[in-house]
Amino acid sequence: MTISTIAIDAMGGDHGPSVVVPAALSILRERDDLHLILVGDEVTLRQQLTSSNGKENDKLSIRHASQKVEMDEAPASALRGKKDSSMRVAINLVKEGQAQACVSAGNTGALMATARFVLKTIPGIDRPAISAMLPTMKTQKVRMLDLGANVDSTVEHLFQFAVMGSVLTSAVDNIPNPKIGLLNIGTEDIKGNEQVKKAAQLLAELPAINYVGYVEGDDIFRGAVDVVVCDGFVGNVALKVTEGAIKLVGHYMKEAFNRNWLTKLSALSAMHVLKRLGKRADPARYNGASLVGLQGIVIKSHGSANILAYANAINEAALEIKKNIPQRIRDRVAEILQQRPV
Amino acid sequence: MTISTIAIDAMGGDHGPSVVVPAALSILRERDDLHLILVGDEVTLRQQLTSSNGKENDKLSIRHASQKVEMDEAPASALRGKKDSSMRVAINLVKEGQAQACVSAGNTGALMATARFVLKTIPGIDRPAISAMLPTMKTQKVRMLDLGANVDSTVEHLFQFAVMGSVLTSAVDNIPNPKIGLLNIGTEDIKGNEQVKKAAQLLAELPAINYVGYVEGDDIFRGAVDVVVCDGFVGNVALKVTEGAIKLVGHYMKEAFNRNWLTKLSALSAMHVLKRLGKRADPARYNGASLVGLQGIVIKSHGSANILAYANAINEAALEIKKNIPQRIRDRVAEILQQRPV
Repeated sequence: MTISTIAIDAMGGDHGPSVVVPAALSILRERDDLHLILVGDEVTLRQQLTSSNGKENDKLSIRHASQKVEMDEAPASALRGKKDSSMRVAINLVKEGQAQACVSAGNTGALMATARFVLKTIPGIDRPAISAMLPTMKTQKVRMLDLGANVDSTVEHLFQFAVMGSVLTSAVDNIPNPKIGLLNIGTEDIKGNEQVKKAAQLLAELPAINYVGYVEGDDIFRGAVDVVVCDGFVGNVALKVTEGAIKLVGHYMKEAFNRNWLTKLSALSAMHVLKRLGKRADPARYNGASLVGLQGIVIKSHGSANILAYANAINEAALEIKKNIPQRIRDRVAEILQQRPV
Repeated sequence: MTISTIAIDAMGGDHGPSVVVPAALSILRERDDLHLILVGDEVTLRQQLTSSNGKENDKLSIRHASQKVEMDEAPASALRGKKDSSMRVAINLVKEGQAQACVSAGNTGALMATARFVLKTIPGIDRPAISAMLPTMKTQKVRMLDLGANVDSTVEHLFQFAVMGSVLTSAVDNIPNPKIGLLNIGTEDIKGNEQVKKAAQLLAELPAINYVGYVEGDDIFRGAVDVVVCDGFVGNVALKVTEGAIKLVGHYMKEAFNRNWLTKLSALSAMHVLKRLGKRADPARYNGASLVGLQGIVIKSHGSANILAYANAINEAALEIKKNIPQRIRDRVAEILQQRPV
């Protein structure tokens, strides 16, 4: 069996080691094909490991890093001033080939800037993008990018996101010719901003991309396309609105079922259904966003991820290692860009 | 009793007169302080009126218009080529003072362009914005703008949306000093694009605006602010993602309750709760977006609105007439802009 090594920024995220360490331990109980390197303050990590009933062994090691990137720190400050941060060291391990992927729940901007600086982008890709899966009404989820790495994306960036999304979806999700939609505020040609309109033209001209047209915000969940491409500002808002709206309905549901003894009785009788429903709509199931376009695998966990959610992010990293994602994107991007009309 | 007159673009929307006419009749059964003018093809409207068991009287009149703006028509084409469209004639009635407001479920871009051309914007406001209410976890809803009138909003536009949102919320929703949030992809100062960052600075300097800072996509539904300000591309995506995510949970709920006879039994017992819940999360309840910043009241209904939803849009128009919204925005904008640091 091939063992994959994953470097984990154990200090990152809202909860730091108290979530990351138990998540790592839970993954190692589930699967034996991983070696996890917990990167961060050695003393803190050893303490957390003890209190979580875990210990270092051939599957779990600690790598000391003396600094930590704060959640509200400017990316440039993290990049210049925190060369021994847990985040930076975890990414360095990927660069040096000591790990095949890294996972962080830390400051997104700093993670993006550091990963881009250390690992560099794939030839033909100007900027990495954040990509994650969203739920749909069908069995198949939908991949969306960019989810916040880039604001003010140009035509060229949107085009590159589409290419990366297409390659990622065929490689990770085993969909041979994924349908690509561009997020817009209407489906008619006249709608949208210039960047989106021009990106649509560019994508329509490229036979290697199965571009199917514009999608609107509510189409994301219909499952009509496999990949939704958008600017990072728009995508981040869409992602968080999705989480918020799902929570809102959950809140209404709680209120409706808690109104009086009769409604509480109904809740009891419907409990098994409500639990199943809650599970299906739980954003933790979708945790683990890929930073695509880099020469190396970097997975971003939600900052507020719980143990289950963080474990999902580690599994996502393992999957991308197994599928050899950066190399596949690299090869396919080169092929596609050759076909591109000049 | 003062009678308010509302001009209705009876040909607009996905369903046209078959929804608009019954909605008008249902409103007139509910309240007697309105005079509705149905604008559109006379023959069609008379037929629809008959089949809906209604007739012309002192509260309901028909105004013939020979043309109709198509849902996918370019705004410029509607503006130049459809001078006798039901949409244009309805807006003209407001301009000429024959009606105090108009309602349309037609092509948003054409409605915006025509309304702006015919009615003009309020002094100090460059572009009208689309504003509507979204549900929150609290009793109070949240007002959001722009929802799709303007893409690539500048700092100045975002600033003006905030001013209009503030005035509209204190006037319509009776909130004296509404809390204004700027939609961003993080709450830290370093987050976001240049427009949002600069608009934040501008708003923070203005004592007349109760600017409270950045909000993220999921904060919209927390009810922590009264007004969420954003670019129209972003706002439209957020609005439609909200609708889509609520429908998604509804879909999951249906699937979960339909799984087997046991879950179906639970659904029966929980039916009264589910109905209440469905009502609360129904977007029809939030139909009727204001085109704010114009010298006249224009209400945009969702294109696919049903009778109930369209009736809500008519009620919204009546409310804005009663509250004398355009005049109040005009006065207050002048006041606020005087305070503005140069």
